[in-house]
Amino acid sequence: MISATMTSEPQPPASAGAGQPSAARSIALVCGGGALPGAVAEAVARRGARPVMFAIRGWADPKAVEPYAHHWVALGQIGRFLRLARAEQCHEAVIIGALLRPPLTQLRLDWYTLRLMPSLARAFRGGDDRLLSGIARLSEQAGLRIIGVSDVAPEVLVPAGALGRQQPTARDRTDIARALDMIAALGPFDVGQAAVVANDHVLAVEAAEGTDNMLNRLVELRAQRRVTSAIGTGVLVKAPKPGQDRRFDLPAIGPQTVANTVRAGLGGIAVMAGSTIVAEPAETIAAADRAGIFLVGVPGDGAR
Amino acid sequence: MISATMTSEPQPPASAGAGQPSAARSIALVCGGGALPGAVAEAVARRGARPVMFAIRGWADPKAVEPYAHHWVALGQIGRFLRLARAEQCHEAVIIGALLRPPLTQLRLDWYTLRLMPSLARAFRGGDDRLLSGIARLSEQAGLRIIGVSDVAPEVLVPAGALGRQQPTARDRTDIARALDMIAALGPFDVGQAAVVANDHVLAVEAAEGTDNMLNRLVELRAQRRVTSAIGTGVLVKAPKPGQDRRFDLPAIGPQTVANTVRAGLGGIAVMAGSTIVAEPAETIAAADRAGIFLVGVPGDGAR
Repeated sequence: MISATMTSEPQPPASAGAGQPSAARSIALVCGGGALPGAVAEAVARRGARPVMFAIRGWADPKAVEPYAHHWVALGQIGRFLRLARAEQCHEAVIIGALLRPPLTQLRLDWYTLRLMPSLARAFRGGDDRLLSGIARLSEQAGLRIIGVSDVAPEVLVPAGALGRQQPTARDRTDIARALDMIAALGPFDVGQAAVVANDHVLAVEAAEGTDNMLNRLVELRAQRRVTSAIGTGVLVKAPKPGQDRRFDLPAIGPQTVANTVRAGLGGIAVMAGSTIVAEPAETIAAADRAGIFLVGVPGDGAR
Repeated sequence: MISATMTSEPQPPASAGAGQPSAARSIALVCGGGALPGAVAEAVARRGARPVMFAIRGWADPKAVEPYAHHWVALGQIGRFLRLARAEQCHEAVIIGALLRPPLTQLRLDWYTLRLMPSLARAFRGGDDRLLSGIARLSEQAGLRIIGVSDVAPEVLVPAGALGRQQPTARDRTDIARALDMIAALGPFDVGQAAVVANDHVLAVEAAEGTDNMLNRLVELRAQRRVTSAIGTGVLVKAPKPGQDRRFDLPAIGPQTVANTVRAGLGGIAVMAGSTIVAEPAETIAAADRAGIFLVGVPGDGAR
């Protein structure tokens, strides 16, 4: 499949030496915002490979990408990205951090991308999963295999068990199970990476708003007395959708998630072990301990 | 069952003449806010029955209840309500409008209710459905059968087909089907009477926030560019949860729903025919026509 489509690919401006062995395996890291791309790059380098950062303009943090080989690319410059990745001898790429679905009018589309527009437009029409799967398919047709964060930096994924000092109660565990079951039921609809359940009652389901907006909503619902569960009860649960391609868009938590969970009056956070990313693990765990909420990785692989 | 529990009931202060035939069938209408209780009472009277309004203090609109026999009751005064309903020779009651889950501390509990506290507390712990089913069970044990709005005033329910001038497109119909399937999948979790889907993409799922809050969220998500679907695409879909007890808490729409759907930039509203209430039908349809959005009743009984 890959070799058959290679011939229709735009060629890089200079011979990129594709197929020649390089001193270190070069891995393209497509970098969205936050500290996570830096943490993944560090882990890649620690394992003896060479991270090549593709920093998305307007999103990536210069501090996270500049210590490594890097290129700034605009969202939509898929042709330029594939050319540069080949020139850098990358055969594998990792997409780090969920990319906000951009409005089509904001995309700077290059010629390669424009040529692919019908496929991209189709990919855009569905949920995030379909968009990302569509982009992955295009990359792979161009000889750049998309792999997951777990393949190159498993240390950034949440392990099973309590991460901080607090443990969930039996009541919390029932709520966690209910939320995981619901997220599984929502899988076919490409929605619901997160939910809040308190005392068996589903308080919020995440769709396009993102986790932080969903948690902020709970603060308002308390003020409106639409949510009246006691402070310190209820759980934020995040899990990949079943069937979700784990190579991109893994659920992620960080210190901000802890702060918003506390503001929402919940008792803790449960995420799926092995398939959830923690940005700034030490700060995240410390924040949970200071607030007295639990932070737990629950075993499971989406199938539960 | 009913006669067995009748003996343990608190007796009404005066002989209520239970079982004696009365000139007209008296039907207790438990009234939340808005114009709907008035519309139901009008339909009940038109059919030759006698509406007895039980207006919930702080919620019901005096204008809607005062034209009929009425009693003001506080939320939680279940004993007082059952006594008065018996004195008024009501053997059937209709609960009109979803009642916001009240904080337990705000309830004015009477002795009868306090005696039932363990059952009520259990009912409170689950979703709204379980709360309402619990209250219905208590009423029926006291000889007051809870019936549905559709049993006494089917004319307030949305019929099948387009209500205004606009028709949904084929694209809209696909989005409607997706939303209905998702609402069906959420049924076991007692959540999701409404959702917004645009171009196959689930933008929002309603949980504790209510439909108006969910629609307002879309306005914010557009400002944040998290939602970028074109204005006039996407559908608000409301449907009873499968297995939901249709005797109470039917989905409802009104002029405010139309206004918020327009502000959210959607193309229209689809509700399940025969099990969705329209408050102020003429105003609601006129508002949809003025805004150029569709308003459609889709056939289905929750099982689809």
